[in-house]
Order: sequence, then structure tokens, then C-alpha cells
Amino acid sequence: MTASVRLPHRGWLFDLDGTVYRGEALIPGADTTIAALRAAGRRVAFLSNKPLETRADYAAKLTRLGVPAGAADVVTSSLVLARHLRRLDPGAPVFVIGEAPLLAELAAHGFEVRPDPRVRWVVIAFDRTFDYAKLNTALQAVRGGARLIATNPDRTCPTEDGEIPDCAGMTAAVEAVTGATVEVTVGKPSPLILEVALERLGVAAGECAIVGDRLETDIAMGKRLGLATVLVLTGVTAAADPRIAEIAPDLVLPSIRELLEP
Amino acid sequence: MTASVRLPHRGWLFDLDGTVYRGEALIPGADTTIAALRAAGRRVAFLSNKPLETRADYAAKLTRLGVPAGAADVVTSSLVLARHLRRLDPGAPVFVIGEAPLLAELAAHGFEVRPDPRVRWVVIAFDRTFDYAKLNTALQAVRGGARLIATNPDRTCPTEDGEIPDCAGMTAAVEAVTGATVEVTVGKPSPLILEVALERLGVAAGECAIVGDRLETDIAMGKRLGLATVLVLTGVTAAADPRIAEIAPDLVLPSIRELLEP
Repeated sequence: MTASVRLPHRGWLFDLDGTVYRGEALIPGADTTIAALRAAGRRVAFLSNKPLETRADYAAKLTRLGVPAGAADVVTSSLVLARHLRRLDPGAPVFVIGEAPLLAELAAHGFEVRPDPRVRWVVIAFDRTFDYAKLNTALQAVRGGARLIATNPDRTCPTEDGEIPDCAGMTAAVEAVTGATVEVTVGKPSPLILEVALERLGVAAGECAIVGDRLETDIAMGKRLGLATVLVLTGVTAAADPRIAEIAPDLVLPSIRELLEP
Repeated sequence: MTASVRLPHRGWLFDLDGTVYRGEALIPGADTTIAALRAAGRRVAFLSNKPLETRADYAAKLTRLGVPAGAADVVTSSLVLARHLRRLDPGAPVFVIGEAPLLAELAAHGFEVRPDPRVRWVVIAFDRTFDYAKLNTALQAVRGGARLIATNPDRTCPTEDGEIPDCAGMTAAVEAVTGATVEVTVGKPSPLILEVALERLGVAAGECAIVGDRLETDIAMGKRLGLATVLVLTGVTAAADPRIAEIAPDLVLPSIRELLEP
């Protein structure tokens, strides 16, 4: 006998870190819950703001932890940026403040990724190889007319060793020296990442639920677009957080495990 | 017969780049003007927001270009930061986003310059060796309680090859990832750099003139503190700039040369 799922929605979007796993450890019950959803014919995809790994890397990690997944099941801010920019300016020359997986995603979407300022866009991302030379290239690119686009708005990224600087640091540096403003940031809580995810699932927003640990991104974005929202308390949000009442997710659960009714 | 100086002030402060020299070239007349001031018994000092060289380096450059100067005649944002922080927290452990001359100035003022986040202050400066590792150290330091102080507020620095990113880029990155705010920025237009310069000259603000090429720093700061202000048009400000009428320097001259009456 299979356990039943608390919500009837056909599409399910899961945040990764703090929801499905924490660092290298699966959150207990994530494997059985997602298996039960799939067994019941529901469609599942995974969302991440982190542009540090490829979708195939995330899929391999999920599979290794007991949640079988392919690259097509994962939607990252890198993918969404590449798709969005392809609509705005296909094949454009771009300079990237970012790591290899983002450069590869952009190249795979037909962009000319250049190491110099002769570009139409500067793409800004979470980049652990960020340095003064990249900041200067971004400045020269903007002085030559380039526009700014970024992957994600996060200030810091939680790791097993504590928080480290995320994309907001690179974005602020570029904006400060150029005087220009990032035109669009595609990752959560932007509707752009949800649009790509819903298209992947092939379901409408009203038929979809989103499960995540962050009120200001996962839950706020889901509510704004009409998805059912499920907050889990296995990540950054504590049960006593006063914003829970304010932002009002449809369900608040101790963990992904409780999506299944006993 | 010596030419006479247009203003009677005993103390004279000169901005460097764009006022006394441009890159490696002396602005014509800077040598004779400053020599005439000194011959007339006026006291002269030089101000720079740039923490990239030591005061001795600036003095050597001035001397090489025909304006004899010693390190004690030069006031940099590094010196002002070191003196200000010595008043706030003498001998404190500090982490520095900056280059070697700033580290040396801080060490010479008795600070414990550390390469790790176990500090009470993060000092932020124009730093061409800025990178993600430094940004992360700054984040960890602030999470451990460290406070922020910066050398100068400039977005970019003009060079012979064009503008390059200045301290505002480093400051914005650190503020964005830490959520903390720089408590004080000591360089122009802060009154702190003028206070140090006036103390060096041994004259009161009302007896002093400042000569510079930037309205928003040299001139605005001078006016705010009651100095006579002289804008020269050999740097970043064009004669047609509408802000000249608004900020209203006491004199607007084509160059430092015209400080002497023919």
C-alpha cells in the first residue's frame, strides 16, 4: 500500500539544499517521498539558484543520495539565464563573472563567451574565482555599452563550513564601479525560474506545488505565481520565525517526509 | 622679480593627479608655481585619496617631476586611515583589503595586520589584488564582530589607459555580502583628511587654500571646512560643467600655472 500525498497537485518543484539534502546528506524521507509522488503519477523537478555546478552534476548527486534524477529534471539559475538571454539577444558576445559550468551553459545556448570587454552583456554570477581583473573587464565592457544580467540575488551561500559570499557581492562591486544597474536577476525569487520549471513539468502554475526552506524566495515566489506552497523546517527557516504567519505558506511541515500522510 | 600669488593664504593644499601632474607628466607651471609659493613663505602639502603608493613614493615622484617634496609633505588616505583608527582602537588586529603600502602604513602605526578573520576591523581600500578569498575573509571577520572602515569613496581611478575600478567596488562587495555598513571613509571628501593636512601645515582652515580638479571632493570638502577653494581645469572637470556655478569655488583657473599673477 502506498502512502498518500497531502496535496493533489500534478506538478512538484523542490528546492535542493535545505529541502532535499543538506550538504552531502539526504534529508530523511526525501527519497521515499519523491518516489511516492512519482509512483502516483506526479511530475517532479528540482530548482537551484546555485550556478556552481552543472545540471548533470546536481542530477548525479541526487541519484547518488537515493533520488534518481536526470539533468533535464534540474533547473538552475544558469539554465534560466541562458534561456532568458537567448530570447533577449541570441548569440551575443558575453563576458562572464562566473565559474566553468555557467560558461559551458552559455556556450551550449549559442553565446560567444569572451575573456575581454568587447561584449554586449556582462553576466554576473556567484563566482569563487572573482577578482579585480574580472571587475575591471566588466567596467571596460560597460563603458563600451555592455548591459548587466545576473544569475541570483543571494548575499551568502550556506555551506558545511558556514556561509560564504554569493552573487550579491559580485553584483554590488560591478554596479558600484560602473554606475550601471543589473537589468534582470533570473534566479529565485524571479518568476523567470518558475516559468522555465513549469514549462519543464508541462503543468500550469495552479496545478503545481513548490516545496522549499526559504520564505523570501521559494515561498514568496510560489505564492506570487499561484502555486501551492510548502515550507519545510529542515533548512534556514526556524519554526518560530514570525515571517511564517506573514508570508503564510499553504503548509508548514517539519520536513519533506511529512508530505506523505501516514 | 618673483611673480605674486593670487591669494594671500599661508597654507596651500594641492591635489595630485589632474592638478600637479597627469600620469607621469607634470602639468606645465606646477613646478614654478609651487616654488614661488614656497619662496613667498607659504606652506605646501599634497593630498591623495590613492592608497596604492607610499607617501615616500609620491614624494619621490614629485621630486622627479620638478617639485621637491618629502614624505612628510604628502597626506594619503592610508595615512589618515591609520591615524584615525589609532584614535579609535590602537593596536587592534586588522584584516586589510588593500595593497602593500597600506599594510605597511598600518603596521607602522602599531596595528596587528593579520591574514585571517580574527580581527576587530576590516580595512577596505582600492586594491588591485582584490579577490574572492579576501571577500570571504571579510565576511567571516564581520560575522565574528569586526567593523568596517575604508580609505576612499571613489568609484573609479583615472589612469593613462582609462578608468579602472577603485575602492567603491571593494566596499560595495563587502557591504553586500556582510549586510554591514562602512562606518567611516577617511579620504576626500571626508573632513578627516583635511584635519590631518591642516595639522601637517600648522595652519587653521581659514588661512588655507585647496587646489584641485574635482568639484565633489576637493572643492566641496574645502568649502565645507572654510578653506579657500581653487578649481583647476586640467583634470576631470570641464569648463562647461554646470556644477561649477552650483558648488562655486572661489577661483576657477585653467591650470595651476595661473595661480601666479603675471
